Amino acid sequence: MSLNVMSKDSGVPNPSNELFLRVGEVRSAAKKLSLTTNEQRREALLSMADALASSSSKIVEANLRDLKQAEVDGLNESLLARLKLDEAKLAGAIEGVRKVALLPDPIGLCQLKRELADGLILERITVPLGLLGIIFEARPDAVIQIASLAIRSGNGALLKGGSEASYTNKEIMNSLHQGLSLTKVDSNSLCLLTSREESMAMLRLDSLVDLIIPRGSNELVRFIQDNTRIPVLGHADGVCHLYIDQDADIEQGVLIAIDSKTQYPAACNAIETLLIHESVAAEFLNKAIPGFKKCGVTLRGDDRSTTYGVLNMASEEDWSTEYLDLILSIKIVSDLKEALEHIHLYGSRHTDAIVTNNKEVAEMFLRSVDSAGVYHNCSTRFADGFRYGFGAEVGISTQTLPPRGPVGLEGLVTYKYFLKGEGHIADEFASGVKTFIHQDLF
Amino acid sequence: MSLNVMSKDSGVPNPSNELFLRVGEVRSAAKKLSLTTNEQRREALLSMADALASSSSKIVEANLRDLKQAEVDGLNESLLARLKLDEAKLAGAIEGVRKVALLPDPIGLCQLKRELADGLILERITVPLGLLGIIFEARPDAVIQIASLAIRSGNGALLKGGSEASYTNKEIMNSLHQGLSLTKVDSNSLCLLTSREESMAMLRLDSLVDLIIPRGSNELVRFIQDNTRIPVLGHADGVCHLYIDQDADIEQGVLIAIDSKTQYPAACNAIETLLIHESVAAEFLNKAIPGFKKCGVTLRGDDRSTTYGVLNMASEEDWSTEYLDLILSIKIVSDLKEALEHIHLYGSRHTDAIVTNNKEVAEMFLRSVDSAGVYHNCSTRFADGFRYGFGAEVGISTQTLPPRGPVGLEGLVTYKYFLKGEGHIADEFASGVKTFIHQDLF
Repeated sequence: MSLNVMSKDSGVPNPSNELFLRVGEVRSAAKKLSLTTNEQRREALLSMADALASSSSKIVEANLRDLKQAEVDGLNESLLARLKLDEAKLAGAIEGVRKVALLPDPIGLCQLKRELADGLILERITVPLGLLGIIFEARPDAVIQIASLAIRSGNGALLKGGSEASYTNKEIMNSLHQGLSLTKVDSNSLCLLTSREESMAMLRLDSLVDLIIPRGSNELVRFIQDNTRIPVLGHADGVCHLYIDQDADIEQGVLIAIDSKTQYPAACNAIETLLIHESVAAEFLNKAIPGFKKCGVTLRGDDRSTTYGVLNMASEEDWSTEYLDLILSIKIVSDLKEALEHIHLYGSRHTDAIVTNNKEVAEMFLRSVDSAGVYHNCSTRFADGFRYGFGAEVGISTQTLPPRGPVGLEGLVTYKYFLKGEGHIADEFASGVKTFIHQDLF
Repeated sequence: MSLNVMSKDSGVPNPSNELFLRVGEVRSAAKKLSLTTNEQRREALLSMADALASSSSKIVEANLRDLKQAEVDGLNESLLARLKLDEAKLAGAIEGVRKVALLPDPIGLCQLKRELADGLILERITVPLGLLGIIFEARPDAVIQIASLAIRSGNGALLKGGSEASYTNKEIMNSLHQGLSLTKVDSNSLCLLTSREESMAMLRLDSLVDLIIPRGSNELVRFIQDNTRIPVLGHADGVCHLYIDQDADIEQGVLIAIDSKTQYPAACNAIETLLIHESVAAEFLNKAIPGFKKCGVTLRGDDRSTTYGVLNMASEEDWSTEYLDLILSIKIVSDLKEALEHIHLYGSRHTDAIVTNNKEVAEMFLRSVDSAGVYHNCSTRFADGFRYGFGAEVGISTQTLPPRGPVGLEGLVTYKYFLKGEGHIADEFASGVKTFIHQDLF
């Protein structure tokens, strides 16, 4: 799906009656799904996994068809790699579904229980959001992952994948529907949207869709934010920083810098800029440059860092660029304050780290940097739902409002307030006949 | 502020350089505020309260000036009542600030502490959102309430009140600034926007403002949702329902119905529609109609309810109308299912209640109705932050995503993930040298 050419004026189509009715059916199915038990949703996931496993050859065949077309269309290598779904990758995705089945139930949790007055009990209990709209690019295994997270958390899902994966996505959805049809979960809870018009029109269905999750470029996310009233689980660029303080363990700093940049450079939690305190810049770069060279990293530095052996000059644009590649910008700063100001100005509030053995400096850095993840003496690459122990993630949110950072099942639920009385009316409290006690019951 | 005439094409102005710089300063002040201690923020609130108290005659005078102008402009009685801020009302608002000072600190709370691996500790800790943008109508005491909630939760705030209260709002803001100037909280943390252009341009400042809170009409909320990328704490109409089940205690049902409609009909948590099971409709209406009559409530019924003495016919439009007045629509339903379908179709997901002594029916109702508040045998009028024991509220959210329902201090904070290691890098885990343990530490 190419959205680069769309401007704010390009106009999002109004939903057709057909789409409105179809999404209404998905919402009804999601409503029923929200009333199922933990065990029923677990069984649904296991049945989805079984159905995928028994259709695996069909799915791989469909994927070969997509791949062939993609080659004809001249897709680049990295897109082809993301598009590819062979037996091994599919088996991994199916294993993922079984793991999500085992995760603890995120719904029905009591977050608050309070006696407002004698016999008037307030409870806040987690419930599914309702219906999720997910727009993602290329990777067909995302359909499997997202569908399993949606069903596990009691939510219906409308999914729109990239057109380059259309055969694969359809075959996967057929399997998922077949799997669900053997369970208590209505198979209409999952619906694949197949045209760009439909996915754009979905943005207008604010009476039916509760959350939009775009997984794709920054442009895609901004386009969606500009064109819908529905809350968006936003993920802007990941411009992550690592700051090497004057009290850093230099060896440790070099290892963390290389890991944060090279362990998987295409990830949003890889660093794009290294900030180094001037008093350790010579020593640090002396050790780090050979390491980066060995990993094939191109360095782009400010004036001062080029005097310590960084070959290329960074331009103003570099400081706000998410390379997603083996390129790293380097800036030498006079103190913590300058490092914080740089991060504040150019960062994307994703994940930023400091290496230092000075506890006070570390504490000031962690408190001051306003990012979803603030790290001390470790790699930024840990910013990930699996590594945090969430079992799975729908993505990483760089918005300030919760859910923030890696979002797992917990981010796909909301809550309702249940109030149970014995004929309580407000007038008795307004007139002073009764009084509130507000006593927490746990 | 009149927004009724604005359409989607009306165009939100781009922020002026002056506004951009000014809001940047507020954001910087908010940043410093976010690093203050609980005690410093408490003292700031008490100083704000003292300053308001010592300026109270000035504030009341400014309000008289606004009231005089409003009379010249021909504002209606209910707006004049909301605009009026006399000594007594002001004293109540000041008392409110002191109460907010006493509320427990919503920031710095540890929500999760987990050892990801030996020596690698993840913590999730609540932090302020950053900068709030609040657009509200008429009531000048709202400035006081919102400013105190913002400072207590460590957030800066841009406030835009109705132009009819401009003298009062300015005088209040002067006092608040004066109060803050004696404390560790930067008085720039609070900023009054004075023109409609500025408040509209604020919607474009998504790099500086973290949350927009509109307190006003449904049209205002929708206009804002359509014109900003910034998350909006939305409050649509409050079309609340009360369902009288066949197993209801009729006396109790009548009292709850009358309270829910008449205790304060202009509130969003008052009911607009009463649904009655057919088997008790005659008995219920026989007892309820005289009660409603005594309170001056006009009833509008469906076909069947008019046969039981309801005088006026309801039109299709009535079912989705928030009267905010002594008007109530009544529909007789055949069963719980029909009641649920009606609420699903016409409700606004605010607060809906059932009266019944049948526990199974109550449970089905509470689970099925997808509203922020679901009530059993009590009045819908309890849907309120003070009554829930939150101490204060910025409003009631009818969006599905948290914060949902009455929003207090807890809804004005987010969280950050703190990760502290000893040189941990991701590659050691990817290569299997180290493994995750994911052990919760509390």
